[in-house]
Amino acid sequence: MATDSIIHQRCEQLVRFFSQAPIKKTFDMKFSYDAQARAIFELARNPTLDHAGGDTHGGVIATLIDNAGWFTAAPHYEHWLATVDLNVKYIEPAHQENLRAIGELVRAGNRLAITTMRVETKSGRLVAIGSGTFTRTSRSIAEMLG
Amino acid sequence: MATDSIIHQRCEQLVRFFSQAPIKKTFDMKFSYDAQARAIFELARNPTLDHAGGDTHGGVIATLIDNAGWFTAAPHYEHWLATVDLNVKYIEPAHQENLRAIGELVRAGNRLAITTMRVETKSGRLVAIGSGTFTRTSRSIAEMLG
Amino acid sequence: MATDSIIHQRCEQLVRFFSQAPIKKTFDMKFSYDAQARAIFELARNPTLDHAGGDTHGGVIATLIDNAGWFTAAPHYEHWLATVDLNVKYIEPAHQENLRAIGELVRAGNRLAITTMRVETKSGRLVAIGSGTFTRTSRSIAEMLG
Amino acid sequence: MATDSIIHQRCEQLVRFFSQAPIKKTFDMKFSYDAQARAIFELARNPTLDHAGGDTHGGVIATLIDNAGWFTAAPHYEHWLATVDLNVKYIEPAHQENLRAIGELVRAGNRLAITTMRVETKSGRLVAIGSGTFTRTSRSIAEMLG
Repeated sequence: MATDSIIHQRCEQLVRFFSQAPIKKTFDMKFSYDAQARAIFELARNPTLDHAGGDTHGGVIATLIDNAGWFTAAPHYEHWLATVDLNVKYIEPAHQENLRAIGELVRAGNRLAITTMRVETKSGRLVAIGSGTFTRTSRSIAEMLG
Repeated sequence: MATDSIIHQRCEQLVRFFSQAPIKKTFDMKFSYDAQARAIFELARNPTLDHAGGDTHGGVIATLIDNAGWFTAAPHYEHWLATVDLNVKYIEPAHQENLRAIGELVRAGNRLAITTMRVETKSGRLVAIGSGTFTRTSRSIAEMLG
Repeated sequence: MATDSIIHQRCEQLVRFFSQAPIKKTFDMKFSYDAQARAIFELARNPTLDHAGGDTHGGVIATLIDNAGWFTAAPHYEHWLATVDLNVKYIEPAHQENLRAIGELVRAGNRLAITTMRVETKSGRLVAIGSGTFTRTSRSIAEMLG
Repeated sequence: MATDSIIHQRCEQLVRFFSQAPIKKTFDMKFSYDAQARAIFELARNPTLDHAGGDTHGGVIATLIDNAGWFTAAPHYEHWLATVDLNVKYIEPAHQENLRAIGELVRAGNRLAITTMRVETKSGRLVAIGSGTFTRTSRSIAEMLG
């Protein structure tokens, strides 16, 4: 199991890594970790990501949930992770509000990590919950972040 | 239950409706129905939707799956649908290939619709499978598509 | 929305209702609510529910999770609920320990309820987590609980 | 990848293995493989597995789905599998009918297997669909079945 110091260092590296992601710019997402190493993704209202009904598309909410889960699990592993399974339960529309997703580590097992996630509006209204399963790949995190 | 003729008409209207979706343009997705009224979404390789590792983001694949399910279920109802639940199983990375998602109607119940979906590359390699649950809202489809 | 007093009354009725369930006897489950109206199901080690490897079958764990979710959601509705969707993530084998499942209400919406659930051993070891979606049926809870 | 001959042999061994499972007897399930090595579980109407409303419990249906998935995936691996994730969508009540679950192999990857499953009544009415993810453990299938 990684020490807090190693996890903290990987969090910093992962934030830098994500800053290069093209989708970060396309969606205009902000990414940080809180003190418990939970990944937080913020998405300010972005009309270019709307469905035809004029509100944030469910796939965009799924993207926040995927990110919040993967980046919450990733710093606990020496290997790079791949997403195995994502479950999203939609609770309320975003209603054009700014969104914030946060992950929670349920289990960092030897082969598999499990997280839960939630997406809220800035005002704290619950928009979606999710859960994810992630598996170790053969690539090392050091190599990917290097 | 809607007749084939009504379903066919709604499919045409839904394609036009989606053509106005901002996310259609942002992602550059193509949308059509096949002869069995299954929704097909095509996404040509789009590097602006990549994660930092340089391949199509899982949330983008979830978006295709969400769309394929929702639009496969929608023409069977007089009411507008809301996505309740989305499950995505990631099988292989897109490896920068063009993608194609298709939905399959499992059940169009009185209150709830269930679909399964798959995402393949243009060459037929399976990238992800999914399932979705959708519920009727109080708004009519005619009002939304009108 | 139901008042606390009505919820409390329904909890008592639901405990009595479940006491008549044949599966309660077959599995030998105990059912109660905690002070926050969360359903708790206890299953003492029962070798008749083992898979061929000699430990509690995953379907039995799914049964606890289904029960914990449904009975946590049910007292919040005037109508009887039907389970729409169940997701179970298996974390560790039961290792022949006594199990305890508990539900958490995430959302009691007009049409749909969402819960999360967890199964632990008596010693607090996490065995599985789950989530569920439940929909109102046309039958009233009063009629079902007689 | 296992040859057809090895898969066929493992299917026979797995049927024998399951015949020793206590839950097989408690539920009174029948297990076989079809010519495509898809696992089939049959459950004749068994009132001891009813919920208090007098019909087959959802956890019993989840058990059939778990079995159909696991046993469809298992013969493709040299290692024993563990269930990672189970998703069940309930479509209609069993209405006291005999049930039949069947699995379909979607993917037998190096680390993870994915299956879909369906539960029907003997008359072909669809009761539930599911999907499952399974991971290799460190134990060999030969050791477990030996």
